[in-house]
Amino acid sequence: MATHSLFLLPGDGIGTEIMVEAEKLIDWTNSEQLTDFSTDSGLAGGAAYDKHQVAITDEDTEKAKAADAVIFGAVGGPKWDNVPYGHRPEAALLRLRKELAVFANLRPAICYPALADASSLKRELVEGLDILIVRELTGGVYFGEPKTITDLENGQKRAIDTQVYETYEIDRIARVAFDLARTRNNKVHSADKKNVMKSGVLWDEVVKGVGKDYADVELHHILADNAAMQLVRNPKQFDVMVTDNLFGDILSDVAAMLTGSLGMLPSASLGAPDPVTGKRKAFYEPVHGSAPDIAGKGIANPIAMIASVAMALRYSFNMIELATRIENAISAVLSDGLRTGDIAQDNRKTVGTEEMGAAILAKL
Amino acid sequence: MATHSLFLLPGDGIGTEIMVEAEKLIDWTNSEQLTDFSTDSGLAGGAAYDKHQVAITDEDTEKAKAADAVIFGAVGGPKWDNVPYGHRPEAALLRLRKELAVFANLRPAICYPALADASSLKRELVEGLDILIVRELTGGVYFGEPKTITDLENGQKRAIDTQVYETYEIDRIARVAFDLARTRNNKVHSADKKNVMKSGVLWDEVVKGVGKDYADVELHHILADNAAMQLVRNPKQFDVMVTDNLFGDILSDVAAMLTGSLGMLPSASLGAPDPVTGKRKAFYEPVHGSAPDIAGKGIANPIAMIASVAMALRYSFNMIELATRIENAISAVLSDGLRTGDIAQDNRKTVGTEEMGAAILAKL
Ligand SMILES: CC(C)[C@H](C(=O)O)[C@@H](O)C(=O)O
Ligand SMILES: CC(C)[C@H](C(=O)O)[C@@H](O)C(=O)O
Repeated sequence: MATHSLFLLPGDGIGTEIMVEAEKLIDWTNSEQLTDFSTDSGLAGGAAYDKHQVAITDEDTEKAKAADAVIFGAVGGPKWDNVPYGHRPEAALLRLRKELAVFANLRPAICYPALADASSLKRELVEGLDILIVRELTGGVYFGEPKTITDLENGQKRAIDTQVYETYEIDRIARVAFDLARTRNNKVHSADKKNVMKSGVLWDEVVKGVGKDYADVELHHILADNAAMQLVRNPKQFDVMVTDNLFGDILSDVAAMLTGSLGMLPSASLGAPDPVTGKRKAFYEPVHGSAPDIAGKGIANPIAMIASVAMALRYSFNMIELATRIENAISAVLSDGLRTGDIAQDNRKTVGTEEMGAAILAKL
Repeated sequence: MATHSLFLLPGDGIGTEIMVEAEKLIDWTNSEQLTDFSTDSGLAGGAAYDKHQVAITDEDTEKAKAADAVIFGAVGGPKWDNVPYGHRPEAALLRLRKELAVFANLRPAICYPALADASSLKRELVEGLDILIVRELTGGVYFGEPKTITDLENGQKRAIDTQVYETYEIDRIARVAFDLARTRNNKVHSADKKNVMKSGVLWDEVVKGVGKDYADVELHHILADNAAMQLVRNPKQFDVMVTDNLFGDILSDVAAMLTGSLGMLPSASLGAPDPVTGKRKAFYEPVHGSAPDIAGKGIANPIAMIASVAMALRYSFNMIELATRIENAISAVLSDGLRTGDIAQDNRKTVGTEEMGAAILAKL
């Protein structure tokens, strides 16, 4: 039996194409005996809906829960725009997040030096940028009840969403952020809207409390609207930013877009360590979506997917060296001038998904 | 008796300094008989708290409701950081928004050509930028109930905020957005998170319904996280963007920051037209805050405040020509090279609040 199990969910659109490159990487690390992974795969999103009329089956959800790590591609596409609400492709993501209880979403926003010019920001503002957004992923307005639409009189309707946070949820995500800050630059910004939201008041209170256990880490409070502005104004002032599910959704997208490296960014979603085994459930996926417009053409950028595998090696299997080796291979290929269409530049060679995956493997 | 009444609430910090320049402008338009304004003023924010232990008194709130337009400076500062929650400076804003029922917040994000280089974005992405964010201002998570923090067992707490939207609230803000789009480029983007929020589902449904009455206006749906990204990637794709209170808070700040003209941007918050008189309650304020760090030094930029008066002339009093004249005077002064400290540039003359106000008046 293999030492570790990976469950692959390619999903829709370019998800299936970039997953192929991830699999080649896994085959290679196995064949080099750097890892001993077993892999299994399932359907998620539109692919699952087409076959089973749900965004993900119970069986695949159980497999995801049993695996040491889930490697996810991307879901969605216009084909499923009119699918019933609870079965839409993104329901797979929401179900997996909740059932795996992966409450800590780590979204690095790194500017690859070779791509600094691709940013819409001035080069000097983003060159060398390395921010880590730590987003709470299993609470807040995404899951709070009531979450309803009710009919009123005169054809009027009332829609309700509920943001709920309890102390323990904030405490544990804050600890993840502070622990990560210690491996970086010892600085955490905590973003909320405590000036208008009670959940923000509690958020700030709990984060400040946790901060007392991390006297060596600088803690700054920032309002979420100001955080969005400051990310645009001067992103390098940030190192680790911790925030709730909804603000994290928006702020991590802004941070990712700043780098000019959107097609390159991976993410990790981690659960709590098991009290007995110490293992934590984990879910890795690229930050970009399923890009239906370029799906099936063999031109998608596989780098974020490959970097997601590297993140799995780092966070789920503590194979820091191998993770770094892969990350360096990505940088090297970019420095060589290789580009997929999304990051095409004058005087650079534009290659397809397969060729980019192969070039990274070759560097290894 | 004067034809129109203005109620001035300078607030805190630089609010009081920039309001002086707004008053000079009003005195001038009155003395030229271009307007016939009566003015009265009150206290808001920390200033009101220091005197009355509330963020705004009932009396001043009544005066605001009775006035044809409220001209607001800015509130807040570290001095009031530990004031009881409901009496914090921003409570004045929230109370006025609610009691005046000014549900439509218009936040133009304009890039002044003379300041395009001050943007953190590349010049070509922001030069000529002119976006109007239409933010719902009296509903959503800002005001929904329950909004509580409760004690649970073991010292745990649970915080709840509630996002509530009813059909009529979405309908009326959508109409404001479509009407404004008709005076501009006939294009509206509606931003929500309908993929995870029921209020987003209703939002989208109602906006699309209203859109049928505006067949001449292009309507695009965009997810709020993607909207934040696209604002950073390529802001000129947008003309009017309509969104809810919380997303509007963040997206309008991002849009404002993109322009490099933050200290120059005004905003208007409008109520529904009175069924009899057709008058709508209105509230005008700069987008920037009270800037406690530079308060009292006479160096604050009065342009956003002056532009807010211009916006009042345009939206409350239909004095389009005079409003445009003031806006042109601002542009002219900037083209002349005059700068306050916040927008200082090499080879440009840096002036104080008073001098900038006087220069704009002189152009008129
Ligand atoms: C697809 C959607 C449900 C999801 C979210 O809102 O969390 C996405 O935007 C993300 O950030 O992973
Ligand atoms: C001060 C604060 C309550 C306010 C808000 O959140 O609406 C501010 O950020 C704004 O945008 O006017």
